Amino acid sequence: MSLDTAATKPHEQLAAALADDLHAVNDMIRARMASEHAPRIPEVTAHLVEAGGKRLRPMLTLAAARMCGYDGPYHIHLAATVEFIHTATLLHDDVVDESSQRRGRPTANLLWDNTSSVLVGDYLFARSFQLMVETGSLRVLDILANASATIAEGEVLQLTAASDLATTEGIYIQVVRGKTAALFSAAMEVGGEIAGQDAATKQALFDYGDALGIAFQIVDDLLDYGGTKATGKNVGDDFRERKLTLPVIRAVAAADTTEREFWVRTIQKGKQAEGDLDHAIALLGKHGTMESTRLDAIAWAEKAKQSLSVVPDHPLKTMLVELADYVVARIT
Amino acid sequence: MSLDTAATKPHEQLAAALADDLHAVNDMIRARMASEHAPRIPEVTAHLVEAGGKRLRPMLTLAAARMCGYDGPYHIHLAATVEFIHTATLLHDDVVDESSQRRGRPTANLLWDNTSSVLVGDYLFARSFQLMVETGSLRVLDILANASATIAEGEVLQLTAASDLATTEGIYIQVVRGKTAALFSAAMEVGGEIAGQDAATKQALFDYGDALGIAFQIVDDLLDYGGTKATGKNVGDDFRERKLTLPVIRAVAAADTTEREFWVRTIQKGKQAEGDLDHAIALLGKHGTMESTRLDAIAWAEKAKQSLSVVPDHPLKTMLVELADYVVARIT
Repeated sequence: MSLDTAATKPHEQLAAALADDLHAVNDMIRARMASEHAPRIPEVTAHLVEAGGKRLRPMLTLAAARMCGYDGPYHIHLAATVEFIHTATLLHDDVVDESSQRRGRPTANLLWDNTSSVLVGDYLFARSFQLMVETGSLRVLDILANASATIAEGEVLQLTAASDLATTEGIYIQVVRGKTAALFSAAMEVGGEIAGQDAATKQALFDYGDALGIAFQIVDDLLDYGGTKATGKNVGDDFRERKLTLPVIRAVAAADTTEREFWVRTIQKGKQAEGDLDHAIALLGKHGTMESTRLDAIAWAEKAKQSLSVVPDHPLKTMLVELADYVVARIT
Repeated sequence: MSLDTAATKPHEQLAAALADDLHAVNDMIRARMASEHAPRIPEVTAHLVEAGGKRLRPMLTLAAARMCGYDGPYHIHLAATVEFIHTATLLHDDVVDESSQRRGRPTANLLWDNTSSVLVGDYLFARSFQLMVETGSLRVLDILANASATIAEGEVLQLTAASDLATTEGIYIQVVRGKTAALFSAAMEVGGEIAGQDAATKQALFDYGDALGIAFQIVDDLLDYGGTKATGKNVGDDFRERKLTLPVIRAVAAADTTEREFWVRTIQKGKQAEGDLDHAIALLGKHGTMESTRLDAIAWAEKAKQSLSVVPDHPLKTMLVELADYVVARIT
């Protein structure tokens, strides 16, 4: 590999390799988010769909399909579908997140946004199913309906598990599958499905997306406590929002009585004072949970790469393998 | 027809004729709204799905399928699907409606309900698509994905049209199709679809549901201004919420300068004072818009009945015809 190629990030390499397909996906997204009767719909979605997203999820579908030799038209529909489901989820997340953030200071504007977010999200969700129907594949509908149920289930689970110190690592992984991995794995699997792959290959594609999504989310949660490299991200958001992520779940499990009282006060009861975040980070360090979580993320990325071993060599496969490394590169 | 039968309401007759099917639908609803990982989901839906709804929409699917001679298992799946979509819509409407009602007085409880409503609605929507996939019919998925898009579009349109005196009768009907008629028509059509009916029959079933839904919603809007019979409903909710419904749209169209100023103040600007509702009702009376709206509702019910003329005679067809009469009986 030349130095030039090495200098390009894997998702940029994928975008370059899939440029024509991505162009077609963007055209389809624009065409299908239009609404004859409700012009507000594209207004609400435009900033989400247009504004410089990496299109990571649709790229997974395109890459999976192309890597498996697909040359029909429907990988475009499915990539647009996946982006619509992702956007609908983001819109509904806005409502969920705003709810807690705006406590005691609701504004007409926020309320209007809330209603628009719910309804436009519903519209995109319905649109995504219309796109799937056009592919003529019931299996595709099955895969993405299942993923949609897992996403919603994971979000509800996150809501009920929030600030509950009894949250286990198992529940955390379940939440992460819903939040992130379910759409990654479905995006990969439907690519193999329309390419007519056998069960083992489709399972491999699914496993890659699942493990990549979990690695991706664990890294995100880790960086919220500072990670090992400086990033543009605000440190401590999850702590302030009392979200139980893997480093904290492990620190709670290892806590002595005084430490447990600290977690009960700050996370469970939400009574946080100056210096608490620093103390929390110190406790994660004391019990080595940042490090153990980091190793978990790397192991998931490794699992993603190994899942693809059954897939024949292909330039896109190489990029997907490198993408898995890249996802955890921020913490290694 | 005996006096005894005449004394029973048409939807009760349908429920009796379809008792076994409805029992199976209820069992399926209970089984499918369960969630292994998120027990909060059935908690949230139980009061909506269990508590004494008329099951009008699933009954339309069951009646359409049975009337067309269907004897397979999938009308149960589709009836449950239709009820799930309806319930998901109600949950998301809660968010939309609460937003305006609770202005200035948000509570943690309300906020929690909001987030649960959004996510559990999403879950039921995903579940409904899983049920459709089980029927193995892409056409069924097509019909209900289209209906879902129309529902969301209609809700967004209602939001943007709200309190806008430029709202036309055409926009009103579009909103009503989204709010009510789209699911009625789809519920009927999918019944014919799984029963393997020809295009003309499926169109007739769709048309019946469409016209019945529009009649149903117009009657509802009419009763909000008192209608012609006493009901348990609060009069004036739509006026206070500044919703433009058919009687008002027509009174605005016929308004002189002073009357227009009244509508601009009360509906567009929302500055309402004691006595305004009475004055609004007087204006509807002056321009005869309650009466003309009433005649429209009756005409839609008539259209519903006539749509079924191509369907061979069947006891369930008789009940559906009587249901159309019953829907407008409250205003005749």
